[in-house]
Amino acid sequence: MGYIYTFEQGDASMRDLLGGKGAGLAEMTRAGLPVPPGFTIATTACVEYFSAGNRFPDGLDGEIEIAMASLQQRIGKRFGDAGDPLLVSVRSGARASMPGMMDTILNLGLNDETVLGLATLTKNDRFAWDAYRRFIAMFSGVVLDIEKHHFEEAIDRAKLARGVKTDPQLDADAWRELVAEFKGIVLREAGREFPQEVHEQLRLAIGAVFASWNSRRAIDYRRYNRIPDDWGTAVNVMAMVFGNMGDDSGTGVAFTRDPNTGENVLFGEYLRNAQGEDVVAGIRTPERIADLKERQPQVYQQFVEIAHRLERHYKDVQDLEFTVERGKLYMLQTRSAKRSAEAAVKIALALVEEGLIDERAAVGRVDARSLDALFHARIDPAAAIVPAARGLNASPGAASGQVVFDADEAVAWRERGKATILVRVETTPDDMHGIIAAEGILTAKGGATSHAAVVARGMGKPCVAGCEALQIDRREGSAVLAGVALHEGDWLTIDGSTGAVILGEAPLLAPPSTLPQWLATFLSWADRTRTMQVWANADTPEDARKARELGAQGIGLCRTEHMFMARERLPVVQEMILAADATARASALERLLPFQREDFIGILEAMAGLPVTIRLLDPPLHEFLPSLESLLVETTELRIREGTESARYKEREALLRRVEQLHEQNPMLGLRVCRLGILYPEIYAMQVRAIFEAACTLKARGVDARPEVMIPGIGTPEEMRFTYDAAKAVADAVLAERGIALEYHIGTMIELPRACIVADEIAQRAEFFSFGTNDLTQTTYGYSRDDAEASFIPHYLEKRVLKDDPFQVLDQRGVGALMRQGVQLGRSARPGLKIGICGEHGGEPNSVMFCHALGLDYVSCSPYRVPIARLAAAQAVLAETGLAAHTTA
Amino acid sequence: MGYIYTFEQGDASMRDLLGGKGAGLAEMTRAGLPVPPGFTIATTACVEYFSAGNRFPDGLDGEIEIAMASLQQRIGKRFGDAGDPLLVSVRSGARASMPGMMDTILNLGLNDETVLGLATLTKNDRFAWDAYRRFIAMFSGVVLDIEKHHFEEAIDRAKLARGVKTDPQLDADAWRELVAEFKGIVLREAGREFPQEVHEQLRLAIGAVFASWNSRRAIDYRRYNRIPDDWGTAVNVMAMVFGNMGDDSGTGVAFTRDPNTGENVLFGEYLRNAQGEDVVAGIRTPERIADLKERQPQVYQQFVEIAHRLERHYKDVQDLEFTVERGKLYMLQTRSAKRSAEAAVKIALALVEEGLIDERAAVGRVDARSLDALFHARIDPAAAIVPAARGLNASPGAASGQVVFDADEAVAWRERGKATILVRVETTPDDMHGIIAAEGILTAKGGATSHAAVVARGMGKPCVAGCEALQIDRREGSAVLAGVALHEGDWLTIDGSTGAVILGEAPLLAPPSTLPQWLATFLSWADRTRTMQVWANADTPEDARKARELGAQGIGLCRTEHMFMARERLPVVQEMILAADATARASALERLLPFQREDFIGILEAMAGLPVTIRLLDPPLHEFLPSLESLLVETTELRIREGTESARYKEREALLRRVEQLHEQNPMLGLRVCRLGILYPEIYAMQVRAIFEAACTLKARGVDARPEVMIPGIGTPEEMRFTYDAAKAVADAVLAERGIALEYHIGTMIELPRACIVADEIAQRAEFFSFGTNDLTQTTYGYSRDDAEASFIPHYLEKRVLKDDPFQVLDQRGVGALMRQGVQLGRSARPGLKIGICGEHGGEPNSVMFCHALGLDYVSCSPYRVPIARLAAAQAVLAETGLAAHTTA
Repeated sequence: MGYIYTFEQGDASMRDLLGGKGAGLAEMTRAGLPVPPGFTIATTACVEYFSAGNRFPDGLDGEIEIAMASLQQRIGKRFGDAGDPLLVSVRSGARASMPGMMDTILNLGLNDETVLGLATLTKNDRFAWDAYRRFIAMFSGVVLDIEKHHFEEAIDRAKLARGVKTDPQLDADAWRELVAEFKGIVLREAGREFPQEVHEQLRLAIGAVFASWNSRRAIDYRRYNRIPDDWGTAVNVMAMVFGNMGDDSGTGVAFTRDPNTGENVLFGEYLRNAQGEDVVAGIRTPERIADLKERQPQVYQQFVEIAHRLERHYKDVQDLEFTVERGKLYMLQTRSAKRSAEAAVKIALALVEEGLIDERAAVGRVDARSLDALFHARIDPAAAIVPAARGLNASPGAASGQVVFDADEAVAWRERGKATILVRVETTPDDMHGIIAAEGILTAKGGATSHAAVVARGMGKPCVAGCEALQIDRREGSAVLAGVALHEGDWLTIDGSTGAVILGEAPLLAPPSTLPQWLATFLSWADRTRTMQVWANADTPEDARKARELGAQGIGLCRTEHMFMARERLPVVQEMILAADATARASALERLLPFQREDFIGILEAMAGLPVTIRLLDPPLHEFLPSLESLLVETTELRIREGTESARYKEREALLRRVEQLHEQNPMLGLRVCRLGILYPEIYAMQVRAIFEAACTLKARGVDARPEVMIPGIGTPEEMRFTYDAAKAVADAVLAERGIALEYHIGTMIELPRACIVADEIAQRAEFFSFGTNDLTQTTYGYSRDDAEASFIPHYLEKRVLKDDPFQVLDQRGVGALMRQGVQLGRSARPGLKIGICGEHGGEPNSVMFCHALGLDYVSCSPYRVPIARLAAAQAVLAETGLAAHTTA
Repeated sequence: MGYIYTFEQGDASMRDLLGGKGAGLAEMTRAGLPVPPGFTIATTACVEYFSAGNRFPDGLDGEIEIAMASLQQRIGKRFGDAGDPLLVSVRSGARASMPGMMDTILNLGLNDETVLGLATLTKNDRFAWDAYRRFIAMFSGVVLDIEKHHFEEAIDRAKLARGVKTDPQLDADAWRELVAEFKGIVLREAGREFPQEVHEQLRLAIGAVFASWNSRRAIDYRRYNRIPDDWGTAVNVMAMVFGNMGDDSGTGVAFTRDPNTGENVLFGEYLRNAQGEDVVAGIRTPERIADLKERQPQVYQQFVEIAHRLERHYKDVQDLEFTVERGKLYMLQTRSAKRSAEAAVKIALALVEEGLIDERAAVGRVDARSLDALFHARIDPAAAIVPAARGLNASPGAASGQVVFDADEAVAWRERGKATILVRVETTPDDMHGIIAAEGILTAKGGATSHAAVVARGMGKPCVAGCEALQIDRREGSAVLAGVALHEGDWLTIDGSTGAVILGEAPLLAPPSTLPQWLATFLSWADRTRTMQVWANADTPEDARKARELGAQGIGLCRTEHMFMARERLPVVQEMILAADATARASALERLLPFQREDFIGILEAMAGLPVTIRLLDPPLHEFLPSLESLLVETTELRIREGTESARYKEREALLRRVEQLHEQNPMLGLRVCRLGILYPEIYAMQVRAIFEAACTLKARGVDARPEVMIPGIGTPEEMRFTYDAAKAVADAVLAERGIALEYHIGTMIELPRACIVADEIAQRAEFFSFGTNDLTQTTYGYSRDDAEASFIPHYLEKRVLKDDPFQVLDQRGVGALMRQGVQLGRSARPGLKIGICGEHGGEPNSVMFCHALGLDYVSCSPYRVPIARLAAAQAVLAETGLAAHTTA
C-alpha cells in the first residue's frame, strides 16, 4: 500500500494510519453519510517526511497526482480549471486529537484565474473574491509564515476608507482590491509572489501541514498530554463545500451531548452564511444549534439523526463539524468529544445506563488525570463565563486576584492581605518568592514545561502559561490582554485546569467536601475492576477522615514530624535537641510523649479498622531549630548593639553555636531518617511507645486501632535489624504493660538505591516495604528536589534533556528499575511481602499503572488524589487485559 | 575427628583448624625440634562455644580429659599431684596473628598443695611461690576479670613493708604471704574462692580464652585488620617449662631477621631467669639475643640453627618464642614475623635473591596497605626510640607536637604557630576544629573505628587511638602516660602507623621524594604480574610529575575547579558567575581561557605520551563566591555601622542577594556537574577550547599531548548527548583552526545510580567510563560525606551498623553491584569500552582487587597511593590464580 487512502478505502480502525479526522471521515463515508469526497495522506508519509529531512517521501507526489485525478473525476470539476475549478481543503489530523494545535487551509485551488470561474459559476462575485482573500491569508499564514495581523490591518484600512464597520459590509470590489493588496503583502513579507500554480499550492500546503506537527505549540501540547513525538500527522484533502453561499448555507460545530455537564442534549453553534473558520474565530456571534430547527427543519432533522447514529455507532459522545451548502448538509468531521471531567464521568454513567457500554468500558472512558480538576477550586460553570483569552492549562485549579507584574510586588500586596495573580512574560528562579506569594501565575511565554508551570505544579498553585494574547510592557507596569489594557491592581481570574483567562473576579467553587454521588458510583465500578489497593498520606485526623471519605483503604504514610512543629511543642522539641545530656533529653521526650499519644489516638480512631502506617521521625534535627542565617544576623546585631557581655547576646550566641554544630552541608544526605533513631534511640522509643499506648487506649474503648510502624531511610540490613529490634521491644513492652493483644507490623521505607539492592536482606526483618519515591528519585538522579525544581529541571524540560519532571512522573527506566529489583528481592526473602508506594507518584496515573505492573499491593497518595489513583489502578487492569484506557483523548 | 589434636597430630597446613600458634607448634614437633608436649583445642570448638551460648560443645570435656591423661603419661607427672605436679600453659592462637589481643595463662595446675610439691621438687621455695602468685594474678585477670592493679598494689605494699625496691628482692616468705593476700583479693573482688581444683582451673581457663576472642580490643583489632569475626581462636595447652629456674634459665623472643629494616641478622631479646611475660612486660631490661652467645654458646648455637631451619622451612622470616630451662632449649612458638613495610619489601627481595621464593610469591608477601606508611612522615628508625606506650595504629604517619587537652586550645596554639598533639579520652564531632588544628590525635579510649580514628584517617592525619596506658584528668588539664605526668605544652610524638606513643619530640623522617631503588625493583615485579593499569588523580604539573615518578600510567582525574580557585583568577571567576547577561559572562570566560590553557599545557606536558583525563567543571558555582554566612554577618555590620545608603553596604548587599540566589539546600544534589555545562554551555566550551588549544600548542612543539575530556555527573543519555556533542564541536573546531590531528576521547564519570542503570544508553556516546565512587557512594547510601564522616559514620562503625566506612573501603555489596551493572551494560553497548575508577577507593587495596575482578582497565588514585595500587592490582591476579595475597598477617 502507498501513502494515500480515499475516504471509501479507510475505516474507523485505521486511526493510527489516517489520524482521527481521516478515520472519522472514512467511517462516515462507509456508513453512507453525506461527506464531501476526498482522501487522506497517511501519518507514515509525515514520519518519512521528517526522517528524510523535511522532504516528501518517494512516490508521494505521484500518489497525490492520481488521487487528485480521481477526485476530479468524482466531482466533475478540474483542479485549476479557470471555468469550473475544483477547490479543496487541506487539514491536519493526528492519531490523538490536538485541537487547534495544527493547521488548516480552505479554498485551495483559487488563483487569479479560477477566482473568476468561481464568480461566474456561483454568480456571486463577492463570494468568490471573499473566498480568494481568505485562502491567501490562510495559506500565507500556514505556508509562508506571514503574521495574520498584516492582512487584518489591511481589512481594517479598507473598512475605514469605505466608512463601514463589519466585514459583511465590504462588497465584491472591496475584496477584489484587498486581494491585490494581500498579494502585495505576500511579496513584501515573504519575498516571493503568491503561488498561482494550484498543484504547487497543494504541495506547499501538504508540506506545511506536515511541518505544523513540529510547531512549538504542537510540541508543548504533546508534551503536556503525553502524546509521542514520532506519531506524525495525517493530511486530509477534501473537496470544498461552502457555508457562505447565502442564508440557506452555514457552518456549525456540535457535540452530541453537553461536554461541560454531560447532559444528553445536542450542544453546539451554527453560523449562517459563513465559512468554517468564522465559527471558531468568534467574529460573529453564532446561533445555538437548536435555532436551526426552526429555520431549516429538514436539515436539522437530518443532522440530529446523523448525530444520534454516530453516537450509537461509536458508542461515545461525538464532536461534529458540518456545513450546509444551499440547503444540503455535509459532514466534515466526527470524533470523540473532549469533555470536562464531570461530563466524562456522567456520560460514562449514562452510556452504561443506555446499554451502549458496560461498566468496565465506562471505567476506561475517563482520563484519570482529569479528575484532578474536580478537587481544585474551579470557576462556577453556572456563571457561563466567556474567557478573554486562553493559554496552556499548566497547573490545575482556578484563582482570582489582583494583577501584579513583579515578584516583589506580589510579596508586598500579600503582606497587605491582598490576593494577587502574578503576571509575567515568563518566570525565572528569581521570581520564586512572588510565585509563593501569589494565588496564581499567568505567563505570556513558555509552555507546560516552563519554569512557571513546573514550579506552580510543584506547589499545587494554579498556572496558565504561554498565553499568546498577553503582551506585557514591563517598564510601564501594564499589559494588554486580548486587546484590553491590564494595570497593576486589576482583578483577573485564571483557570489552570482549562487555560482560561478571565477579566475580573469570576465566581469560584471550592472543591467538594464529599464525593458527589455520580462520582462515587463511577469510582465503585473502578473499585470492582482494580486489584491494587489505594491508601492515603495523611498526618492529621482531619486529613485521615477526608481520605477515608474519598475511598482510602488505609494510611500509607503518617508523618510524625509535623506533629513536632506545632506551636506548643516546638520549645520542648528544641529542648530535646539542645539537651546537654541523656537525662535532659529524656525529660523533654517524656513531655512530648503525651502529645504524640494524643496525635496517634486521633488518627488511629479516624481510621478504625484500617491500617495506619506511622513513619518515625525523618527530617534532620536542625529543621526544628531557628535558621542559622537568622541567628547570624541576630547575634551580629546583638553583639554591636548590646555587646558581647549582654545576657541576650550570650544566650543567642550559645544557641547559634549549637545550630552551627547541627548544620549540615547537605541535610538531605545527613543525620536524618533511621540514622536519628540509631544515634538517639530514645526518640524512636518515645514515638513507638506513644503509638502503642494510643492503640491500647483505643482498643480498651473497643476501637479497632491498627498501627503499623515504618522506619525511614534504611540503607543496610543492620540498620533494619537495629531499629526493628528496638521498636519491637518497646511495642511488646507496652502491649504487655496494658495486657492488650494487637497485631502490628514493623516495616520500612525503601527510598535509597542501596535499599533496593539489598532488599532481600532488609526483608529478613522488615514486614512491609513502602517505596519512598520522592527520596529514591533524589538519590537515583542525584537531584535535590528543592533545588532542582526551581533551577535546572525547568531548563532540562525545555531543552528536552528530561521528558518529564521525575518528581511528578515516576522515572520508570531508572527509579523504576531499582523498584523492580526491590520488589523481586524483597519477595524472594519474604514471599507475599506487602509492598506499597507513598511517594507523591502514588497519585499520578501513569505511575500508578506502573506500580500495578510491578505487583505492588497498594499506592498511597494525598487524600484528594485518592479518586485518581482508584481510577488509574482500575485502568491498569484494563490495560493489562488489552482494553485500552480512556479513549477520549 | 574431634576437637583436640596433639602437637604430633597436627602440621603447618592445619592453620585454619589449629590457629597459627598451634600449627607452628605441631610443625616444629614434626620436625623434631624441642617443643614441650601439649595439644591444641581447635578453632571449631570456639565457634561452637559461641553458637551454643558460651558453653563447651558436647564431647569437649571428655576429649580434654583424654588429652590430659595422655600428656601426663608423656611427661610422667600428674595434673594436681601434690608430689610431682604437671603444670601447663593455656594460650590462645587464632588463624591470623593478633599479637597481645587475646589471653595467656601460665603455671596452671598450681594450688595450695601442688605449690608445696613444686617447691620440694625444685628445691626452690621462692620459685614455687613466685610461680603460684603469678598464676593467681594471671588467672584472676583472664578468668575472673579482676584488674591487675589490685595485685600490683599488694606487691608494692609488700616491698614497702620490707624496705626493698624490686621483685627479685622479695623472698619466698614474702611471696607466700602475697599468695595469701592475692587469694583474699580474689575473694573480695570476684566474690568466690580462688579455685583449687586443677581440672576446674583448666576448664575455666579454656572458656576464658574462648571468650577473649570477643573482647573489645580483639574485636577492634579484627575490624581494623579485616579479620572475620567468625573464625574463632584455638587454645593451646602445653606442659610448662620454666625460664625462671636460675641463671642457666631464661626466656626470649627473636626474629630471624630485623623486622624493622629487613636486615638479615637475628634480632631479639633474652631475659635471664625469667618467665615469658617478663619480656613483654618490660619490668627488667632484656639483653640482646646475641649476648646469649657468650653465656651459653651451645644453647645459642642450637637456637641459631633452629631459627635458620625454620626460616628455610617456612620460606619466610619467623617470629620465635623460646625458653631455656636449666640449659635446655625449648621452642614455644614460630610464626611469620610481623614487619615494617620497608622490612617486608626488603625481605621479599632477599628471599628471592636467596632462591627461597620466586618473584610472584614475593609480590604476595607484602601487605599493600602497609606501603602507605612509607609515604607518610615516620619516626627515624636510626633513633632506636623506645615508646612510652602503645595504642591502636588508627591513622598512619608520625607527628610531634605540644600536648593540648582541648580542641579550642589546639586552635589557640595553632594560631600562635605551635604544633600540637590533641590528647583526649575520646573525640566527638564537637572536637572537629581541634582535630583540624592539631598535627596528630591521641585518645585513651576508642578503637580503630572511633570518631577520632575515622576522622583522622579521612583527613590523612596521624592518630593513635585507645591508648590504655593514658589516663586523662580533664579538670586538671593534665594526664598520666604510662606513669609519667603529661601537662599542656609538653612535647609528645605519636606514630599512627605503629601505634607508638613517645615522650618528647622524636626525630621524624619526611616521606621520600622519589621511589627508593629497593621499592622500585619490588614494584616492577608487581607490574609484571598485574593486568590492570594504575593511573593517578592529579590537578597540577607537580602532582602529575610525582605520580609519574611513582609509576602512574596516566592521569585518571584532573580536576579543573582547583584552577578556578587560584588567587588571581577567582575575581574573574566571580565576575563570570555574577554576570548579568551572556555578554558579560563571555567576556569573563574569555579572560579565563588563557589561564586554563596554561594549566593544561603544564599537565599535558608533564604527562607527555600518557593520557590525561580532564574533568570539566564540577562543583556548584557558589563554591567560588564568598560564603552566605560571612556575607550575612558583614552586611548586618555594615547596615548598623554605615547605614543602608552607604556604597559599601549596597555593594555587599547586592552580592549577598546573588549568593542567596545561588544558595542551595543540598548543593551536592544541586546545580553542578554536567548540569552546569547544560545550563551554561559557554563554560564547558571555554574549558574544552583551552584543553585543545593547549594540546595543539604542545603538538606543534613536538610534545605528545594526549587529552581526554571527562564530563561529570551524567545521569541520562540526553545529558551525555548534549555535552558530548557540544564538546566535540569545540574540540574539532580548535583542531581544524590549528590544522592539527589528534586522537582524543570524550567520556564520562559514572557517579550516579541512574548512570549505572542506563549505562548502555550512555555508552552510545561516551567513549570511556570512569567510576566516581565518592559520589556514587554518597547517592547509593544517601550519605553526604562531609556530614556523615563527622557525625554518624563513627557511631555506625562503633555500633557495627557499618563494617567499614564506605568512603574508605568500597561497598562491594551495594555500590559494587551498581558498578557491575554499569560495566556490563556499558560494554554491551560498546564492546571494549575503557573503564576506570577515579574515586578515592582507587588506592585502597581491597577495592583495587574488586576493580580487577570487575574487569576495569585501570584504577586512578592520589599519587602517593600509586605504589599501593600497583601492588594490590598484582595481588588481585595472584588471588585469582589461587595464590594467596600477603601471608604475613
